[in-house]
Amino acid sequence: MSEIIATYLLHDKKEDLVKKAESIALGLTVGSWTNLPLLEQKQLQKHKGRVVEVSALPEDEKANAYFGEKRIKGIVKIAYPSANFSSDIPAILTTIFGKLSLDGEIKLIDIELSEELKAQFPGPQFGISGIREKLGVFHRPLLMSIFKGVIGKDLGDLDQQMRAQALGGVDIVKDDEILFENEKTPFEKRLVSGLQTLREVYEETGHRTLYAVNLTGRTYELRDKARRAVELGATSLLFNVFAYGLDVLQALSEDPEISVPIMAHPAFSGAITPSSFYGVSNKVLLGKLLRLAGADYVLFPSPYGSVALDKAETLSIAEALTKEDTQLNKAFPVPSAGIHPGLTELLINDFGNDSIINAGGGIHGHPDGAVAGGKAFRDAIDGVLNGKSLDETAETSDPLQKALNLWGRPEVKA
Amino acid sequence: MSEIIATYLLHDKKEDLVKKAESIALGLTVGSWTNLPLLEQKQLQKHKGRVVEVSALPEDEKANAYFGEKRIKGIVKIAYPSANFSSDIPAILTTIFGKLSLDGEIKLIDIELSEELKAQFPGPQFGISGIREKLGVFHRPLLMSIFKGVIGKDLGDLDQQMRAQALGGVDIVKDDEILFENEKTPFEKRLVSGLQTLREVYEETGHRTLYAVNLTGRTYELRDKARRAVELGATSLLFNVFAYGLDVLQALSEDPEISVPIMAHPAFSGAITPSSFYGVSNKVLLGKLLRLAGADYVLFPSPYGSVALDKAETLSIAEALTKEDTQLNKAFPVPSAGIHPGLTELLINDFGNDSIINAGGGIHGHPDGAVAGGKAFRDAIDGVLNGKSLDETAETSDPLQKALNLWGRPEVKA
Repeated sequence: MSEIIATYLLHDKKEDLVKKAESIALGLTVGSWTNLPLLEQKQLQKHKGRVVEVSALPEDEKANAYFGEKRIKGIVKIAYPSANFSSDIPAILTTIFGKLSLDGEIKLIDIELSEELKAQFPGPQFGISGIREKLGVFHRPLLMSIFKGVIGKDLGDLDQQMRAQALGGVDIVKDDEILFENEKTPFEKRLVSGLQTLREVYEETGHRTLYAVNLTGRTYELRDKARRAVELGATSLLFNVFAYGLDVLQALSEDPEISVPIMAHPAFSGAITPSSFYGVSNKVLLGKLLRLAGADYVLFPSPYGSVALDKAETLSIAEALTKEDTQLNKAFPVPSAGIHPGLTELLINDFGNDSIINAGGGIHGHPDGAVAGGKAFRDAIDGVLNGKSLDETAETSDPLQKALNLWGRPEVKA
Repeated sequence: MSEIIATYLLHDKKEDLVKKAESIALGLTVGSWTNLPLLEQKQLQKHKGRVVEVSALPEDEKANAYFGEKRIKGIVKIAYPSANFSSDIPAILTTIFGKLSLDGEIKLIDIELSEELKAQFPGPQFGISGIREKLGVFHRPLLMSIFKGVIGKDLGDLDQQMRAQALGGVDIVKDDEILFENEKTPFEKRLVSGLQTLREVYEETGHRTLYAVNLTGRTYELRDKARRAVELGATSLLFNVFAYGLDVLQALSEDPEISVPIMAHPAFSGAITPSSFYGVSNKVLLGKLLRLAGADYVLFPSPYGSVALDKAETLSIAEALTKEDTQLNKAFPVPSAGIHPGLTELLINDFGNDSIINAGGGIHGHPDGAVAGGKAFRDAIDGVLNGKSLDETAETSDPLQKALNLWGRPEVKA
């Protein structure tokens, strides 16, 4: 049967998790059951929610202390028949975590879609292999960098930054997510100018760089704006999906005229994911749902910086994006924030070859500027892939040596 | 200066809230400041974020115990110049709570838009006075009811429920928010059939009832679907705004062809609002932002039912929806869930005349059925407005007496 199974973590006031699970399974589908006439039960059988699992977890003393009363901690899995909803993410979210999100201490921590339901979602149009093909880079993690301090600046400043990043060997340059339509660097001009700079660097060096330009504005204008960007030669789009909606990302991703990889930014997702008691897990929101909605690459806080996520959380996102799937392309994990060259070994150890190393200050803040910042990373990556320590690599890489001197490096356990 | 001031509640790891505030004000606007050349400072002055207020709050022992370390609790207000973002909700959310939402224990608890910025948002097209005009009801709280157990049911069943609710004197009937496109009760047929039933009741009784039909499906199909609904005579729309995006609501609300009041459902908002440490307050999300985006009525959990909000939270939503504003129409607060006629006095005391009393089980579960359920509420409302206690009113209202017998009534303090 086509269905979605949702897994919830509860810290419930009431003793009886089984009863709670049953009330969810019925309340969010057919409403009631035991009082229904047999004929009606027969008619409604295919719509009835199903309790898949109820498991108690050990008492959580900290949670009890925080709430000032004993809470029953446990996991509940409910299956919702696809017959109950249309095959779109808003209908799914409303079904599995609409009213229920308001029902006390409950967090949506996993979802599993049946193959039939999953087939309704296109997933990443390019994904890891498509992006690698665009760049012609197949055997190393990619390097991404972010413009810095762009608000109030003009095109000349952005072009200068763009050129330095590309010359440094960066594979993808992304806009700052807080750069919106503005007089000095309006979308189309910024795009055309950035692409021109990248073309020049390619002609000089043979190195290709994608540019993820920030797609912003009113929802109903985004498709036309993205199509226009592609006409102008855009090679990628950056999108603040959680300020809009997952279904908007899906619409952009499945539009045949928007034939470029889409990068999902986690802006505003921290309003939904961090609580132990409420919201939606990173694995579901940044992992499974973004892949389903068609994100080709997904940024999330790395476990290392000042804005950091628990390592297990970051790995759960990366796994959800890259797990083998019979239907969906893999999406690139992009652990971000606080990344400098000294973290390269750690990043590759933790996130593997099929990930993107993404830096802002860790490139622009290099003592010799952004070109050297990019080179430091590229040398570090090559070194790690050749089995060398960062210090060994730095012996023949001045940019890396200077980066390590400035930012240091964590000890990496074998 | 046109700007938005955002207020945050922090439970921060570090001692220095002033430093934190400054790093937010700069980091989310111009990036850095003190190291910039004077000329550049001059150029960027109008883009620079401003710390408006930093206030320490008493230590929160429960929070400290929960995090296992001392946290600095405080309030920080930052002003972001409108020059930095386009005048749309996604740009505002990304600016004030994009990356910042991921930065530890921080909750967005208030926003204030300058008049100039607010003028970019149309707000509710109908609001309280527009809805009252449509119904011709000016001097009492409105009564709303919800279909029950509609998944898998056919049009005949829905029409029967619709008829009973309207005959009971209900002013607005809303779809169940988990009813999506389906074979038995597809959108257009359900709408036409529901409107026909309401027309029949009007011809029999002279009582008008609006029908808020659930607008669902893919984002980029919603406008056409809503316009078609209005062509077919729709009198209102229900919308699961948080499963889509606030900007989609705004687009629907400001579309001149979608000339009906829009009802915002809080489905999924519980993923964002309930934590003390993270997310966005109910006042901002369900109150200020929904009004700004053009919701004409807003459902939220009442303080009385099993799915309940703190009373102060519910009042903060209602205040944000109904506070006098030089530019924005007022929106109807609709405290919902667990409402029965015994709560009428409490509801009117707490939410005033300009609110909507909304019941599901409290109407359909009446011992004599939904017609009597509606009448019990209408009698209770009239009684309260005439200064009578519910018991006094019940002396001459058999439906109310039976409702009070079944559900009881809380004591109302004078």
